[in-house]
Amino acid sequence: MHNSTNDNKSTSKKKVVAVVGGGLVGALNACYFAKRGFQVEVFESREDIRQAKIVKGRSINLALSHRGRQALKQVGMEDTIVSKGIPMHSRMIHSLNGTQSPIPYGKKGQVILLYKILCFVTAAAETYPNTNLNFAHKLLDWSTETGAMTFVRAEGAKEEIQADLIVGCDGAFSAIRKQFLRQSRFNYSQTYIPHGYLELTMPPINGEFAMKPNYLHIWPRNTFMMIALPNLDKTFTCTLFMPFEEFEKVTTGDQVITFFQKYFPDAIPLIGAEALKRDYFRLPAQAMVSVKCSPYHLGDKCVLMGDAAHAVVPFYGQGMNAGFEDCLVFNEIMDQLNEDFSAVLPEYTRVRVPDDHAIADLAMYNYVEMRAHVNSKLFLFRKYVDNFLHIIMPRTIIPLYTMVTFTRTRYHKAVKRWHWQEKVINQGLLFCAAVSVAGCSYLLVRYPPNMPNIPTEQLWSRLQALKSPF
Amino acid sequence: MHNSTNDNKSTSKKKVVAVVGGGLVGALNACYFAKRGFQVEVFESREDIRQAKIVKGRSINLALSHRGRQALKQVGMEDTIVSKGIPMHSRMIHSLNGTQSPIPYGKKGQVILLYKILCFVTAAAETYPNTNLNFAHKLLDWSTETGAMTFVRAEGAKEEIQADLIVGCDGAFSAIRKQFLRQSRFNYSQTYIPHGYLELTMPPINGEFAMKPNYLHIWPRNTFMMIALPNLDKTFTCTLFMPFEEFEKVTTGDQVITFFQKYFPDAIPLIGAEALKRDYFRLPAQAMVSVKCSPYHLGDKCVLMGDAAHAVVPFYGQGMNAGFEDCLVFNEIMDQLNEDFSAVLPEYTRVRVPDDHAIADLAMYNYVEMRAHVNSKLFLFRKYVDNFLHIIMPRTIIPLYTMVTFTRTRYHKAVKRWHWQEKVINQGLLFCAAVSVAGCSYLLVRYPPNMPNIPTEQLWSRLQALKSPF
Repeated sequence: MHNSTNDNKSTSKKKVVAVVGGGLVGALNACYFAKRGFQVEVFESREDIRQAKIVKGRSINLALSHRGRQALKQVGMEDTIVSKGIPMHSRMIHSLNGTQSPIPYGKKGQVILLYKILCFVTAAAETYPNTNLNFAHKLLDWSTETGAMTFVRAEGAKEEIQADLIVGCDGAFSAIRKQFLRQSRFNYSQTYIPHGYLELTMPPINGEFAMKPNYLHIWPRNTFMMIALPNLDKTFTCTLFMPFEEFEKVTTGDQVITFFQKYFPDAIPLIGAEALKRDYFRLPAQAMVSVKCSPYHLGDKCVLMGDAAHAVVPFYGQGMNAGFEDCLVFNEIMDQLNEDFSAVLPEYTRVRVPDDHAIADLAMYNYVEMRAHVNSKLFLFRKYVDNFLHIIMPRTIIPLYTMVTFTRTRYHKAVKRWHWQEKVINQGLLFCAAVSVAGCSYLLVRYPPNMPNIPTEQLWSRLQALKSPF
Repeated sequence: MHNSTNDNKSTSKKKVVAVVGGGLVGALNACYFAKRGFQVEVFESREDIRQAKIVKGRSINLALSHRGRQALKQVGMEDTIVSKGIPMHSRMIHSLNGTQSPIPYGKKGQVILLYKILCFVTAAAETYPNTNLNFAHKLLDWSTETGAMTFVRAEGAKEEIQADLIVGCDGAFSAIRKQFLRQSRFNYSQTYIPHGYLELTMPPINGEFAMKPNYLHIWPRNTFMMIALPNLDKTFTCTLFMPFEEFEKVTTGDQVITFFQKYFPDAIPLIGAEALKRDYFRLPAQAMVSVKCSPYHLGDKCVLMGDAAHAVVPFYGQGMNAGFEDCLVFNEIMDQLNEDFSAVLPEYTRVRVPDDHAIADLAMYNYVEMRAHVNSKLFLFRKYVDNFLHIIMPRTIIPLYTMVTFTRTRYHKAVKRWHWQEKVINQGLLFCAAVSVAGCSYLLVRYPPNMPNIPTEQLWSRLQALKSPF
């Protein structure tokens, strides 16, 4: 999988890279830095997740797409990880009356739903001899000047370490980022959305998935939304997104059932009324935060990646992918600038900030779109137009979702191109509409029709008949 | 000025209000709470400013307008403070060629430039027997649950206090706000603008002001801008606003002169070339931050006001006014809800957040406008149109600046109304333009003119002659 001695320029110096946070981005970063020959020390405040119990109700499944795959590929992990996931080709929209209609991800796309990925990446990092994983180490203090760090272990003992580079991958509530907040001219925002989320489980029926697997099931209901994602054990994890004030209104099991009968009736028998009444109150609704900041580095000593740099709301399925791409982009800049931290860190900020801000904004935009528009006819029509144009002009019109999910087009460039495409397509549609209206008007005036007097209802059933395959 | 015994409902309970921060908003709040009969403890980390030396170069003069005056009036301080300031009626635009043109603040407006106002407000707070000013007290820790607070005094001794209400008025870098950041669902943003500022002094000439006083002098130069404000000692404080990267380019005295010759030639003799070369490097350029957050309260224990809640960039002259209005709005809600903190605090957040966010955004908007548009002909034309319409329809069209500066229209309502007015005025102007063009075209077709063949230049001087008063 890797060879830590093939890079003689790095092994000779053995600089110490301290990765703070042993989550997905931290563990992947450990692989990247270890592969370059650095002495890598990973510090994680929690216990090793491989020995911990799984906490139900706070999982939000992880969707791996192109960017994440590319980042895994670079350290030889793509195939292993992909083989362990479930591929998804399409969304499935559940309307209020129970009908289901798929919206495919586009012609070349699929996303892979992942399970226990952290265990795999952690195990991969551990195989490098120049990497130490230090679990149950809580960051106490560190110096932005010297890179001196103090950790406190679970049993209370203190541990000091001198790092040449500190990589902050400690998540949305990053302790490393707190030092950044003390610096002048550090831009920062954290925005909680008014929605919370709550997870429910849909059990298998006769040992099989209760709904079609390989689909992201969505129940869009304007201000509310539920989604369901398949698990390896043939269950679905259903996630209900709803404003906190609505969660507060539902306080009894009967109210849960009434609420589901009104908005998600087809889900009640699948989850089971009794389980629904019970599991709804297992955990309080969880908050979701969007974090943006800039710069991502402090001098030549510290850099932020992943959620620590840009927590995004989970509505574009790009949180993990963007974090993994951070590692890949940093790695590319390390190549370009010969591992000179004093040049690499500012360049990483310059290159990566606009892209991460763009994906944070897009996720927020999708938060609105997924709830409100997915069940609007115009929205579906526009999705079909976009996909159709993409098929006939694959290089000119690329749907935004495709650029974000199935290419490595820089996020901020994808947004720019999307705005341009929207303008062109809307003008084109307007032009087509105008030409059609003008043409029809001309024909109607030139050749006045001799219409039979058919009642509207009859006309409607005749039109319906045209769609019949018979 | 006040009577601390006139409110028997409050004096009986003597709840303790801890005001953290002895700046302008903290000192004014002390007056408000003392007037209601609370036991007020003000904690300020610095020494008493009345005994401290004035720090040159970081003053940014303070402009008092309607909102601030109303807040001072409520505690009987308006007249005293206004009498000590310099009234300003107009801006004065300095163009590159040295010509000066005034833009008045509107028909009824004037702003008062203030000096040493903190000393006056502090002195006023001190006259209340139920108020203690604790200088050189640094906040060490406090509990959001119990209101227990620990301060450390200059000499190192610790002091504990139990507060019923904690009012955080400790400025843009608030220590109180740090606890808010640890709570879930606290929205927060801090945005540094790319510009820094630097102060220079323009001395008096023969004992008199070097330029017309009672004006806010502005040198708009697109990406740069300089303003000058009169002081009581007949000097002007000139403030240069410029991107940090431009500041970094100017490193020698000669470069300062070259830079001023290019952009602010008329200011060189007034400041003095030697003083300019020296004072430019006295302090590094200072950063400016815009802070927004929500909510402003934690339970019934703590509330943020002033810069701690909403630091704004200084381009609308509303920083102090918005902070003073915070105290006034809080006071109004205290009346409405009978001093019940558990009701007053959430209501204050509900009412005040949209207004403070609106003024923060407006100040940021003016940051662009003041630099870029003040010297555009269209902008000046629109200002005149707005003021003209305000004179003939004083209740329908009110310029935004007038609403913000000379009324207590809620900030967010002023912005809403402004957007509506802009739409109406622009449509009106378009309509007038269309009617004029149509009318002229009709007349030209109906009565073709018998134009003498005058060369364009001659035509121009004839038109110029029409403007001559002779």
